[in-house]
Amino acid sequence: MLINILAYPGMTMLDAIGPYEVLSRLPGSRIQFVASDGGPIRSDTGFVNFLPTCDLASAGQAEIVLVPGGPPEMVMPVALDPGIQSWLQRQHDHSVWTASVCTGALILIEAGIIAKGGVSSHWAAAEAIAARGLACTGERITRTGKVFTAAGVSAGIDMALALCAEVADTATAQAIQVGIEYDPAPPFPYAGSDPAVRERALELLEGSAAGM
Amino acid sequence: MLINILAYPGMTMLDAIGPYEVLSRLPGSRIQFVASDGGPIRSDTGFVNFLPTCDLASAGQAEIVLVPGGPPEMVMPVALDPGIQSWLQRQHDHSVWTASVCTGALILIEAGIIAKGGVSSHWAAAEAIAARGLACTGERITRTGKVFTAAGVSAGIDMALALCAEVADTATAQAIQVGIEYDPAPPFPYAGSDPAVRERALELLEGSAAGM
Repeated sequence: MLINILAYPGMTMLDAIGPYEVLSRLPGSRIQFVASDGGPIRSDTGFVNFLPTCDLASAGQAEIVLVPGGPPEMVMPVALDPGIQSWLQRQHDHSVWTASVCTGALILIEAGIIAKGGVSSHWAAAEAIAARGLACTGERITRTGKVFTAAGVSAGIDMALALCAEVADTATAQAIQVGIEYDPAPPFPYAGSDPAVRERALELLEGSAAGM
Repeated sequence: MLINILAYPGMTMLDAIGPYEVLSRLPGSRIQFVASDGGPIRSDTGFVNFLPTCDLASAGQAEIVLVPGGPPEMVMPVALDPGIQSWLQRQHDHSVWTASVCTGALILIEAGIIAKGGVSSHWAAAEAIAARGLACTGERITRTGKVFTAAGVSAGIDMALALCAEVADTATAQAIQVGIEYDPAPPFPYAGSDPAVRERALELLEGSAAGM
């Protein structure tokens, strides 16, 4: 089972590596990181440089196509790239599942793959999604037909486990969850509804972005 | 603040990328992936290839040194490598914090950085740790002095948040948690105490290892 994960400069690594770590444990899965060209991909922070598996033209048709997110200024050029848009449309036409994590939802929206209704995305992207006539559901995972969207960054792990249950079965998904010991225990209560914490969170995200 | 993450062939990506994603959002942090040599590093599954930042000799002294895990057959050559052992010892001598994720604990143990007591590690590594005269605590995070060890794979995210609270403060750690929207909601109950699920989990981990 071929899984194509879109790779682009300025992407957020955990958006991709969370689902990769889960989906790569599915029996028979093969994961490709697919980029516009073959050069190394630098992450949003500038600290990770990795080599894509292949370019758009040579990727082949995936059963699962997955789009990670990143900071808005890195995501929008990708979302508006005609070559990436048409590649995603073709992949989606024949995929069994199409998925996004975080602001990757904006890329699926701009490609016309999600045209209405609600999606999961990073909480900070709610306005950008509303401006396109859709709504951020605020859910960790939103499924509409064969399209899964996940909330910000770490939510891709939860979404990938849900996908595993669809592709294989719940027992397999649960075994993968145990394999990566995903019994999360954040040391602090989640403070995402506090406006001051959100503001500080955005400052830290912006402060850690490398610029390109 | 320099953070050195050890990188080696066959490592598990989420062990490194989970903590990286958290720690890279700390104001003033700079993260290096440090390898024995400069060539691309291939992950345990064979699906990720990334470029280390620098080699052991040129890495410089970190305030935080972090060791990710991987499958036992990939971890043990690293744990027994004299060059890596002495590099880790030197880093640890002057680090503010030293940390491991998953079977990375075995690397710290073999380097003599943890000599007794309990550590957190992947549940499947409990026997290997007992064979070295230490104990797997079964906790998500274990702290002994300046050494933090985390349980399997995904536990590095929780540990890194706890580290952020030490390095900065709880408010900063909570803002980073909100930045990566880490409000985990696994779609299934965690079944890690079920021996049949553990057995299946090991089969899937072994089945997805690429071999080197």
